Amino acid sequence: MHTPAVGKANEQQVRIGDDFWNGYSDLVRRTVIPYQWEALNDRIEGAEPSYAIRNFRIAAGLQEGEFGGLVFQDSDLAKWLEAVGYSLGNHPDPELEKIADEVIELIGRAQQEDGYVNTYFTIKEPGKRWTNLLDAHELYCAGHLIEAAVAYYRGTGKRKLLDIVCRFADYIDSVFGPEPGKLKGYCGHQEIELALVKLYETTGEKRYLKLSQFFIDERGSKPSYFVEEWERRGRTSHWVQGTVPAPNLEYNQSHLPVREQSVAVGHSVRAVYMYTAMADLARLTGDSQLRAACERLWNNVTRKQMYITGGIGSTHHGEAFSFDYDLPNDTVYAETCASIGLIFFARRMLQLEAKSEYADVMERALYNNVLGSMSRDGKHFFYVNPLEVWPEASAKNPGKHHVKPVRQKWFGCSCCPPNVARLLSSLNEYIYGSSPADNRIYVHLYIGSEAQFVLADAGQVGLKQQSALPWDGRVSFKVSLPPDKEGGAAFALALRVPAWFQSGKPVLTVGGQPIAYRVENGYAIVERTWSDGDEAVWQLPLETKLIAANPLIRANAGRAAIQRGPLVYCLEEADNGAPLASLCLAADAKLSERFDADLLGGCIVIEGDAIAADRSGWAEDTPYRPLGQGGGTKPVRFKAVPYYLWGNRTPGEMIVWIRTAQA
Amino acid sequence: MHTPAVGKANEQQVRIGDDFWNGYSDLVRRTVIPYQWEALNDRIEGAEPSYAIRNFRIAAGLQEGEFGGLVFQDSDLAKWLEAVGYSLGNHPDPELEKIADEVIELIGRAQQEDGYVNTYFTIKEPGKRWTNLLDAHELYCAGHLIEAAVAYYRGTGKRKLLDIVCRFADYIDSVFGPEPGKLKGYCGHQEIELALVKLYETTGEKRYLKLSQFFIDERGSKPSYFVEEWERRGRTSHWVQGTVPAPNLEYNQSHLPVREQSVAVGHSVRAVYMYTAMADLARLTGDSQLRAACERLWNNVTRKQMYITGGIGSTHHGEAFSFDYDLPNDTVYAETCASIGLIFFARRMLQLEAKSEYADVMERALYNNVLGSMSRDGKHFFYVNPLEVWPEASAKNPGKHHVKPVRQKWFGCSCCPPNVARLLSSLNEYIYGSSPADNRIYVHLYIGSEAQFVLADAGQVGLKQQSALPWDGRVSFKVSLPPDKEGGAAFALALRVPAWFQSGKPVLTVGGQPIAYRVENGYAIVERTWSDGDEAVWQLPLETKLIAANPLIRANAGRAAIQRGPLVYCLEEADNGAPLASLCLAADAKLSERFDADLLGGCIVIEGDAIAADRSGWAEDTPYRPLGQGGGTKPVRFKAVPYYLWGNRTPGEMIVWIRTAQA
Repeated sequence: MHTPAVGKANEQQVRIGDDFWNGYSDLVRRTVIPYQWEALNDRIEGAEPSYAIRNFRIAAGLQEGEFGGLVFQDSDLAKWLEAVGYSLGNHPDPELEKIADEVIELIGRAQQEDGYVNTYFTIKEPGKRWTNLLDAHELYCAGHLIEAAVAYYRGTGKRKLLDIVCRFADYIDSVFGPEPGKLKGYCGHQEIELALVKLYETTGEKRYLKLSQFFIDERGSKPSYFVEEWERRGRTSHWVQGTVPAPNLEYNQSHLPVREQSVAVGHSVRAVYMYTAMADLARLTGDSQLRAACERLWNNVTRKQMYITGGIGSTHHGEAFSFDYDLPNDTVYAETCASIGLIFFARRMLQLEAKSEYADVMERALYNNVLGSMSRDGKHFFYVNPLEVWPEASAKNPGKHHVKPVRQKWFGCSCCPPNVARLLSSLNEYIYGSSPADNRIYVHLYIGSEAQFVLADAGQVGLKQQSALPWDGRVSFKVSLPPDKEGGAAFALALRVPAWFQSGKPVLTVGGQPIAYRVENGYAIVERTWSDGDEAVWQLPLETKLIAANPLIRANAGRAAIQRGPLVYCLEEADNGAPLASLCLAADAKLSERFDADLLGGCIVIEGDAIAADRSGWAEDTPYRPLGQGGGTKPVRFKAVPYYLWGNRTPGEMIVWIRTAQA
Repeated sequence: MHTPAVGKANEQQVRIGDDFWNGYSDLVRRTVIPYQWEALNDRIEGAEPSYAIRNFRIAAGLQEGEFGGLVFQDSDLAKWLEAVGYSLGNHPDPELEKIADEVIELIGRAQQEDGYVNTYFTIKEPGKRWTNLLDAHELYCAGHLIEAAVAYYRGTGKRKLLDIVCRFADYIDSVFGPEPGKLKGYCGHQEIELALVKLYETTGEKRYLKLSQFFIDERGSKPSYFVEEWERRGRTSHWVQGTVPAPNLEYNQSHLPVREQSVAVGHSVRAVYMYTAMADLARLTGDSQLRAACERLWNNVTRKQMYITGGIGSTHHGEAFSFDYDLPNDTVYAETCASIGLIFFARRMLQLEAKSEYADVMERALYNNVLGSMSRDGKHFFYVNPLEVWPEASAKNPGKHHVKPVRQKWFGCSCCPPNVARLLSSLNEYIYGSSPADNRIYVHLYIGSEAQFVLADAGQVGLKQQSALPWDGRVSFKVSLPPDKEGGAAFALALRVPAWFQSGKPVLTVGGQPIAYRVENGYAIVERTWSDGDEAVWQLPLETKLIAANPLIRANAGRAAIQRGPLVYCLEEADNGAPLASLCLAADAKLSERFDADLLGGCIVIEGDAIAADRSGWAEDTPYRPLGQGGGTKPVRFKAVPYYLWGNRTPGEMIVWIRTAQA
């Protein structure tokens, strides 16, 4: 069954209005975007300089100097501009728009005669374009600029940046492709593939779709382009001096043609960006082999290599997937960007087929790994999102140096903060889907919002969603129809039944009357003739649950996590003391919930009974002794807070997976 | 109280005769030493070449070629020769002695006019001597050659190698020292300090003791010799091209003067080799500050940074200590050489003061970490000795690549195998101590052996120890006196009361009659007038115990290890299936013991009740679900084998710390 389920931008118009999420969009608009603008201009004291604006000024001939930062520094500016584009679409802001217009002007000046835009190669290695696709991120940066242009055009209607990137894409199309004389290469960091699909969907220019397809089809063919390129380069690398071994093709997922891939390997952000483009292309071209590969890879990632927080990437070595069921909590990577990419992938899978598991994962990654990456002040970010932190180990055990107990200001490689900004400011695009031909509106995420849809028979339909999530499960939908629809409109509302491990079935009422529904692919399908003003209330059970992990996930054996609705919880030292490993949930932990208005901006905390090792009976210099001898254990109360709020108080230990007395 | 408790070689003569250990000394003599000789000659197929002999032939002008292997490759040959020296002392073997004599001849030929011996600097960088003490291991290699010479002289009475190293040491003494014009440096890898003490004790030449003292005293003084040397070298390193940051002084324990050190840091082998020399010097010079530092460092290492197997070094980054209570079982280092160095340190602490905890640690490291490093065939070795292995993670998670599930043939950096050989072939030096002036004989290890002591009043005393360890706790000592001692001899036998977590007190009988004893510093002191032929029987309780770890050791929270006597046990996949993490000891595990003559050469296995996750109820693609839902758990029997025997069957998972139902 092929049910396209997330509409294109022109099929739906959505504006978020939600008690929980308004705080975040405001934070992005009022704090993150302005803060990141300062960062891009190297004006944040104590933070590593970005050089991003400076590089463009130098490339535009407005300033003298050397290129600064990493080879893909341009992409930070692009991601910021993309976020600005979304934000302006939702919240007009003339002052911000003026700044953005000026930056776009600057980018235009830095564009070369032939359309090329890249400050690194313009300033530092002119003449070396396309000689190191493996390392140099040229097409990656191009992709981000294209995404920015599409967002800015959609948000403001202004074409300037779109024109810049079309010229750039035309130029890239003249360099790469199957035709004789063109390069048969593709980027070492996937990104342009999904960007070209967006450019195609925005401009209708099929060449962009074909170019994306070319990059995807060519990837992994033998002999390897990257190996040949490495030979041509004299076996050198952008990253280290001297010669280097042949590239690890798994790292960038070019070890196999994409249609033959079944297991997620290598750098996790590269992987999910690629899967996203694959799902786009499968949808747009009807390529069933590509779709099957997407489904296999989805299943592998989300069922065998995903943390309960929606994090992916088990090792910091290569910021990569490791292997099935290898999900260590303390040496984890779970990069913010990777979870964002997983959300992109999930959204595209929903467009291929409306199955609630895609939206479930989207929600899991969003509410936990992604939200948790940002501090409450919007100015500090995690790159790595651990499920277990011992600050002293982060400081003193080099295998955990990458796991920070405190969010950082801005990174030298600052991919994550602007990625969070662009996701949160475009969140309205992730809530709904529609299948106009079927007169069906899908609700994937329960986020308060006003939306307009155009359906085939029902015509224009307005929906006002109100949601008390994540604290309460009441969600309502008020239907609004145009005045000419006095007799109502027949369409189906398809409401996701969340996989929150709840025991009850959500209850649906319309006008106070319970309504029966059937469940299809995890969606409650409510087909009826709706009248203007009808209100459907969807009551989601929200129970606090202890969650077990598959026994094959060794790291979580004998442990449980706490989840309530979409939120995963954690224990922090601030509430429970240390070491947290000493805590063991009581056999009957009697979990209770309580809204604490004063804690971390207000949240529901979960409390219960636990047993803790009684350290008073242990001398500090006794490492080992017979079990059960001496002090033993003592009953204690524990307090869990939502994972996304961790690390906003005094730095300390944190754990998601808690020991349980149940084997 | 200062009770020197391990005699010098000339105070005791000990020959091992023991059911358990004979197998190991035979293995070293018949297999390890010959096999390593083949390895040193690059004749092991499939193993990385050693180049050690080849380098000496080139340095001696007998062969053309380039230096091969690592900068400290000479030390492999030295450690082998040292093992041969011990072995020949215990088991004369003319054929082996002839080979060794020829090698010594070769070393003599490679010695330079001024006494210098080092094939790397002779072949590859003549003129660069002593320009990179930090990296180049010159004094380290000298130290190993000195140890070899002392062992060979003691074992065979031949002076040739001793003369070579005395000339070398005299030359070193002319280069280094506090006098004007001499270098104020010391080695980046401690070793020569303890070797010079041995050379002093063998030759009586005080200059060697003074030189050792100089190296120890100078270490850590400011400004740092290593930093200044690095500046002089143009900030380069032996190990990488280009310039490098200033040396990490903690890595080689030169961050502080040694007398100010309290916490073990840096490379663990370097650390314990240094502590060994410090304890030697504290004993020989009566330096109380140095002794206090030894005691502080001992306490820190053994009470806060030691695995239950006697392994030390928690991280492979720098093969180093990390910090107190950081003892991860799966990313562990616990290098074989480090435990051997810990045994050296323990032995020297026993010489400073007879306290049973030193011998307890010695025994723990010996029976577990060290014995476990060698395969039953004596031809394969672990460098890293993990307490938890998941072979797929070792292969696919780069953070665990250093943890091998299978012993390797021979390492490019092959410090460990010859270190095991030299320890096992000199084990007779670790069993007894004597305090002649006090007429007291200490028994530190219960290893069957015949020993001769010379005590002040009692005169010559012979002791024949028979031990059923590690399987049974019966140990007996038969006294033999010279014919002129018809009236017996008054002396004290001081028998270590092992800290095996046993509930009972060992029973001592002489001639079948129970004897009361007092315990002093962990030793049962039996003072009496002994007659020729008296037999003391020392019945050590050997109970299988579940051991808990201090709650501050996060990695072992909620877990127990199994120990029986000196042996730590482990679970292997071969006996218990996988994943081992699924197993949880039952609240009443009802441990039982059984000797299995057919298993791994014969050993006592421990069996008991456990609970295992019932995987039949879990779909492989369900990562998470509510706790207690579905399959649940099932009762199973588990079987534990001695840790030192792990990894001798089909490669699989292994764990030492098992989950328990007790919080």
